[in-house]
Amino acid sequence: MATTTAQDVSVPREASTTWVYRFGNGRSDGSKDQKALLGGKGANLSEMSGIGLPVPPGYTITTEACEYVVEHDGTWPDELDDQVRAGIRHVEEAMGRTFGDPENPLLVSVRSGAALSMPGMMDSVLNLGLNDQVVEGIARQTGNERFAYDAYRRLIDMFGDVVVGIDREKFEHAITSMKEERGVENDIDLNANDLRELVDRYKAIYRKETGRMFPDDPWQQLRFAIDAVFGSWTNERAVKYREINSITGLKGTAVNVQAMVYGNMGEDSGTGVCFTRNPATGENKLYGEFLLNAQGEDVVAGIRTPKDIKELDRLMPEIYAELQEHTTRLERHYGNMQDIEFTVQQGELFILQTRDGKRTGPAAIRIAVEMVDEGLTSESDAVRDLVEPGHVEQLLHPRFKNENGYAEKVLGTGLPASPGAAVGRVVFTADDAEEWNQRGESVILVRVETSPEDVGGMDAAEGILTSRGGMTSHAAVVARGWGTPCVAGCDDIVVNAQRKTFTNGEVTVQEGDWISINGSTGEVILGKQPLVDPELSGEFSRFMTWADDLRTLGVRANADTPEDARQALEFGAEGIGLARTEHMFFGDDRIAKMQRMILADSEEERRDALEALLPFQREDFAGLFQAMKGRPVTIRLLDPPLHEFLPHDAEEQEVLAERLEMPVRRVREKIEQHAEMNPMLGHRGCRLGVTHAEITEMQARAILEAAIDVSTDDAPVRPEIMVPLVSTKAEFDHQRSVIDEVAAAVFEERGKEVQYRVGTMIEIPRAALRAGEIAEAADFFSFGTNDLTQMTFGFSRDDAGRFLPYYVQENLLPADPFQTLDQEGVGEMVSIGTNRGRKVKPKLQVGICGEHGGDPASVKFCHDTDLDYVSCSPFRVPIARLAAAQAVTEDDR
Amino acid sequence: MATTTAQDVSVPREASTTWVYRFGNGRSDGSKDQKALLGGKGANLSEMSGIGLPVPPGYTITTEACEYVVEHDGTWPDELDDQVRAGIRHVEEAMGRTFGDPENPLLVSVRSGAALSMPGMMDSVLNLGLNDQVVEGIARQTGNERFAYDAYRRLIDMFGDVVVGIDREKFEHAITSMKEERGVENDIDLNANDLRELVDRYKAIYRKETGRMFPDDPWQQLRFAIDAVFGSWTNERAVKYREINSITGLKGTAVNVQAMVYGNMGEDSGTGVCFTRNPATGENKLYGEFLLNAQGEDVVAGIRTPKDIKELDRLMPEIYAELQEHTTRLERHYGNMQDIEFTVQQGELFILQTRDGKRTGPAAIRIAVEMVDEGLTSESDAVRDLVEPGHVEQLLHPRFKNENGYAEKVLGTGLPASPGAAVGRVVFTADDAEEWNQRGESVILVRVETSPEDVGGMDAAEGILTSRGGMTSHAAVVARGWGTPCVAGCDDIVVNAQRKTFTNGEVTVQEGDWISINGSTGEVILGKQPLVDPELSGEFSRFMTWADDLRTLGVRANADTPEDARQALEFGAEGIGLARTEHMFFGDDRIAKMQRMILADSEEERRDALEALLPFQREDFAGLFQAMKGRPVTIRLLDPPLHEFLPHDAEEQEVLAERLEMPVRRVREKIEQHAEMNPMLGHRGCRLGVTHAEITEMQARAILEAAIDVSTDDAPVRPEIMVPLVSTKAEFDHQRSVIDEVAAAVFEERGKEVQYRVGTMIEIPRAALRAGEIAEAADFFSFGTNDLTQMTFGFSRDDAGRFLPYYVQENLLPADPFQTLDQEGVGEMVSIGTNRGRKVKPKLQVGICGEHGGDPASVKFCHDTDLDYVSCSPFRVPIARLAAAQAVTEDDR
Repeated sequence: MATTTAQDVSVPREASTTWVYRFGNGRSDGSKDQKALLGGKGANLSEMSGIGLPVPPGYTITTEACEYVVEHDGTWPDELDDQVRAGIRHVEEAMGRTFGDPENPLLVSVRSGAALSMPGMMDSVLNLGLNDQVVEGIARQTGNERFAYDAYRRLIDMFGDVVVGIDREKFEHAITSMKEERGVENDIDLNANDLRELVDRYKAIYRKETGRMFPDDPWQQLRFAIDAVFGSWTNERAVKYREINSITGLKGTAVNVQAMVYGNMGEDSGTGVCFTRNPATGENKLYGEFLLNAQGEDVVAGIRTPKDIKELDRLMPEIYAELQEHTTRLERHYGNMQDIEFTVQQGELFILQTRDGKRTGPAAIRIAVEMVDEGLTSESDAVRDLVEPGHVEQLLHPRFKNENGYAEKVLGTGLPASPGAAVGRVVFTADDAEEWNQRGESVILVRVETSPEDVGGMDAAEGILTSRGGMTSHAAVVARGWGTPCVAGCDDIVVNAQRKTFTNGEVTVQEGDWISINGSTGEVILGKQPLVDPELSGEFSRFMTWADDLRTLGVRANADTPEDARQALEFGAEGIGLARTEHMFFGDDRIAKMQRMILADSEEERRDALEALLPFQREDFAGLFQAMKGRPVTIRLLDPPLHEFLPHDAEEQEVLAERLEMPVRRVREKIEQHAEMNPMLGHRGCRLGVTHAEITEMQARAILEAAIDVSTDDAPVRPEIMVPLVSTKAEFDHQRSVIDEVAAAVFEERGKEVQYRVGTMIEIPRAALRAGEIAEAADFFSFGTNDLTQMTFGFSRDDAGRFLPYYVQENLLPADPFQTLDQEGVGEMVSIGTNRGRKVKPKLQVGICGEHGGDPASVKFCHDTDLDYVSCSPFRVPIARLAAAQAVTEDDR
Repeated sequence: MATTTAQDVSVPREASTTWVYRFGNGRSDGSKDQKALLGGKGANLSEMSGIGLPVPPGYTITTEACEYVVEHDGTWPDELDDQVRAGIRHVEEAMGRTFGDPENPLLVSVRSGAALSMPGMMDSVLNLGLNDQVVEGIARQTGNERFAYDAYRRLIDMFGDVVVGIDREKFEHAITSMKEERGVENDIDLNANDLRELVDRYKAIYRKETGRMFPDDPWQQLRFAIDAVFGSWTNERAVKYREINSITGLKGTAVNVQAMVYGNMGEDSGTGVCFTRNPATGENKLYGEFLLNAQGEDVVAGIRTPKDIKELDRLMPEIYAELQEHTTRLERHYGNMQDIEFTVQQGELFILQTRDGKRTGPAAIRIAVEMVDEGLTSESDAVRDLVEPGHVEQLLHPRFKNENGYAEKVLGTGLPASPGAAVGRVVFTADDAEEWNQRGESVILVRVETSPEDVGGMDAAEGILTSRGGMTSHAAVVARGWGTPCVAGCDDIVVNAQRKTFTNGEVTVQEGDWISINGSTGEVILGKQPLVDPELSGEFSRFMTWADDLRTLGVRANADTPEDARQALEFGAEGIGLARTEHMFFGDDRIAKMQRMILADSEEERRDALEALLPFQREDFAGLFQAMKGRPVTIRLLDPPLHEFLPHDAEEQEVLAERLEMPVRRVREKIEQHAEMNPMLGHRGCRLGVTHAEITEMQARAILEAAIDVSTDDAPVRPEIMVPLVSTKAEFDHQRSVIDEVAAAVFEERGKEVQYRVGTMIEIPRAALRAGEIAEAADFFSFGTNDLTQMTFGFSRDDAGRFLPYYVQENLLPADPFQTLDQEGVGEMVSIGTNRGRKVKPKLQVGICGEHGGDPASVKFCHDTDLDYVSCSPFRVPIARLAAAQAVTEDDR
């Protein structure tokens, strides 16, 4: 029986499809707009060539060719082979050399290049076209035998690894043995003869591992390499990556075939890297370095010290002038500061690559503003392309002077829980932190984890370090809110609070020792690292104005105190989207009353305690209203389980017992009664207000009385009262009617009214589903995406540290859903809630107030979902403003 | 400026709408199919009259009239007044008396009656038509002055309370004072003069409270009463009730106006209640009791002892014969055993009311089967109407002989967590339960709450009583699974496990004392109450066959052991829908290995411990497969947080330390490390299997090896392996590939294969949302509605006891969502998951295996949502079978 394999199937002839796009030598078949067809790299090469830059000539095989080959089990479309050969002829003409000709050989590279870069795709293969004859031709041509054989052995190594999948260690082992035999240390110390022998050994490895000879036909080398690029499109890692990141609609990867050029062909050759502006400061001046007679990797290897780019002007003035001309053109063309690689081959300049240059935050702002002033870009393009949210973040916090090489030991790395750098002496309790701080000491508070009882000490500390807990642990949330640097969940260290030490297994740090923590990277460093303070320049303000002009999404802040509120205003917040009332109860003057309220045996006793709390709460709210000068303030009613307010150590329990004139045993019993198996899903949020309406009454009264006290005709206060953790409409109705009754009473008593609104957090999946009926009664929604994420995933943010890092590391999740909103799951909940709510009440105000409000990707989601505003920590407000503006610029794409 | 009030607006004349439907005296304008228009009561009265029964004549004002009046702010439609008067004329003619005529007066009652009964609707007003003149007429007519004034004072009381809202206590106070003044104890001891004076005092109260005179115009009384009924439709309680229970589409309530008849007009009068068959046994024989010269309330009050209905045959043979004729006709007409109220007024029989009679479980089955055999109903109607799921439940468990009057004190009432009655001596620890049981003692295990460590003792107990925890607490779930009676969360008692006592504040029960618990009602009774054992009759089997023939929904059982599996088969389960593997690890021979596995420091150590567990697990699964004889068995991989397997008291921790040869301090540290803030949302379910694939490997191997061992050609075992707590497709893919690899290895080793399927629990909201992509990889879904309810509501079932009972009591929720599936929220999750899954894989098998699988309303939901099966505790399997059949009969409605 005859078997028909894929190869036997005849492929119908395509009607003259163009599979290959050429570039270089003044030719440019494509442009930068053809990323889908040519991949990012290919489109860029065509573009550069199109604007007259001297790129090494080559061609791009389209993503459509890849799609075809994948769909036809590896068979090439009919015309592809011809077009590939025609492409090589184009390169031959441009370079004046011939592929496979030992007399005057042309060498090429093959690289993958999809529309988006992704892991798993095939790396480069360089020096294709070499064989035992051609290598001699190269040696003759360059007069450098060592160079020729080094190129040859590199070809076999890369081809073996990348094209046929030989473990690279085999080649590494061979070169290491060779160096040992020769008694030399560096590759560079092997001479031409050594390398010739190494080529033989490499070929033997190739044969042993694959059962075949290394192909010495250059055309076969080329074909294999192109097929390997096509094949890498469907390898497991790449497929998984696209799946996890929801990347769909791409046809395949393009393949770039390009002439090799060498900077190590003598003293008239060289290679370098330059930026069109200074990436550290933003100064508008060519910045970079180069090496004569060297290849790119020599610059990176650091064996020779590169020279400043200015030296090039002295050594090769014509080349320098040409380079300047090109870099200026490139920056103007791309409208962005460029990072450019170039090579000079025997007196001829080639631009190898250009891309947007990485830069510091201050540089990003300066470059953006100056490029607009220079007419090189528009304000909206500058907002879209020239500053990233991370740049803005850098501007708001102190940084270490040299983040890339600390003077002292890095003790460990935890989660970058709250950005910025901090330096201080180690203390292990909140009380110590306060005490040392009062003595004028800078301290870093080090805890296994923090709890609401620690807030005093946290406030007194320069920075916070915990060994347990995630990005939304108590320490992280509180620290971010204040802009205090925090490294959380650093499990490289073990904290012994009793002995007042912590250790990473090697170094033990005592109380009072100096450490430095980098909340932007998660690093914990021994000693006092030098700091650079942030400063908000006038340029920054100008830039943010452009962003504000663009964005349509509102930006509010989460703020619990007048100080936070003022900070938020300074950073551009338009209101308070979340004022948590629970933090207000931890003050020394309040906690005792709160505890008396919680442990009350009767409603009457509870009411007494609440009455004592009322003036404090009223004062809290008045402070917020005053700070916000008539801007909207959303106040959430009491949310956490009451257990959090009770003391958990024996000593404090005794103090409490004395204060309440109750036996300690009884106090302990009562505290025990309040303990819950799963407090996150327990008696908290509006469930407290429903079972104990008197708590809601007190808070509503405090809010409304404060609003009346502060309200003026010019700046009327319009509080938004937010009911937390609603899962049924009946709960909301219950709380709303309690609040409305209090309001009527207060207005009657005071003879004055304020406009107030009553809305709800949507943070429980059921509330999102029932949003339609809840919207009938609610004046506004605010998505509490922290809790919504917990419940939609069934992940406790306090406990997820046991598996979530593993999930992210193993690509089971694209990101920590507590940092970046899970758009597929939690995001659908937000969409459902918004749509159902607005269907009933088209103008329903909808915002979010979870940690996600300051995450750029999540802000974009909120913009796309048509929310009214995001609310985030004050220190993330500028980031949210920028991200919201960028979301608008992406709408137009 | 002129003000227009609602009353001033002229109402357009309706084109001859019929607002009033008459009945009685051979007339019947409506029928039982007109519930929407006439309400339940009105339709029933018309129906009875229509089939020739002597109902007291009257008429029904339609629900449309109510709707009209509510919509027009109290204004009646034009013709209504005329029709109301015409209705009264119809009654006058039928009774030969005249409304308001002191010579020959007619009295009437006014009652509300919507299509569905609901709280908050207006109660009856009786004796309308009385005033100072008419009362004398009644006295003359009946020759009974006391009767006349008693009726009059009752009218003022009821009218005052129900129509104008006077606090009933005011009238109570007046009659109590009167009795004190007269020195008598019972109302009956007040004479006609006393009552005449009481009428005056009542009128004074009426005037004081309302500022108006009691209306002495009978027509005005009637109009006020009708308006009060209309008004009650929109009172707060009724509106709330309809909202909570999602009752929509009703127009309003009907109003029934009916002639008063009296059974206390002499020795030729009387009143009684009868059932067409014996409600306790089902015997086909008239059953009931009556009182001569008495009103209905006298029968209830219990002052006089009613006579057996057979006596009526002797005393009034013609009346008895007429009654028998009517009851036979009624039963035949309604196709169901009837509960009938009748009154004889001066030798004339009136049927006041008939309704389907309540009955015991055994009676329900007997009646159903006999009525089918007698040709009075069809099999499917019998399944639909004659047996309720609760009846079946009664048949499966022992009951107390006299549930309505225990011989001893009821100590408290908790949740009816697992049905059935149990009697035993009190013990307070699981160990004691096992020890006493081995001595041959019957014990009731009393705990604050139970944990997995207690299962041995729970198994040894006749019944379980806890003072904390809800319907899905550990005690409740385990007990229901075994059919062991359980009262959970009985907060009337305080358990002191150390002193081995519990108390309800009055009585203190010591270890060894006898108590009885009723798991069907939640009662805890002192002493040994006599029991009736259940027996499953041949009639029961016949009846269940009819149900099985009807139903389309599969019914499986949740079973973890071969014993449970056999019990489930006996009760008619078609497979196992959930075998939990965690219970298997608590055996004495296993727990040590499990603990070693959990506390292992390395993967290697963990693998060693797992290897030791493998033979046990294999044996467990083999037992299940053998018991189920080729029926489907769904096995869930390890689900609970590992902390649950670790010892929590100091002594056991020491034993463990010795066993592991580890310092106690180290063991405690490790146990502490496993503690979680919110274990329900922590490191459990497939998160364990993902981070420790070796656990999944061991379990998959045990399942597949057992399947191969047990499988025969006749009864091939096809295990369904279920991955719990999936929230992303990536997790499922991970677990599936681990299982598939193990399967390939096992099949290779054994040289034999079995068909297996890998599916997932959908129990996390995100999994329901992402069901489409998960279905690409999963062979089946099973909704874990316990966890899905927890996460959709954000309610921890362990902690919800603090607020959930309050929510249900205050109507913030229609039912405990852990007992009856919340169709609006959790149900939508189930629908979304099912629809999205089936869209991708149309034949995807979908079931549920939460506690809801045995709840009739939830079973109906599963049927309507087109699930393939429900899975529930073995003891609930017959209930689910019946409920599934009833769901089919309702499809046709």
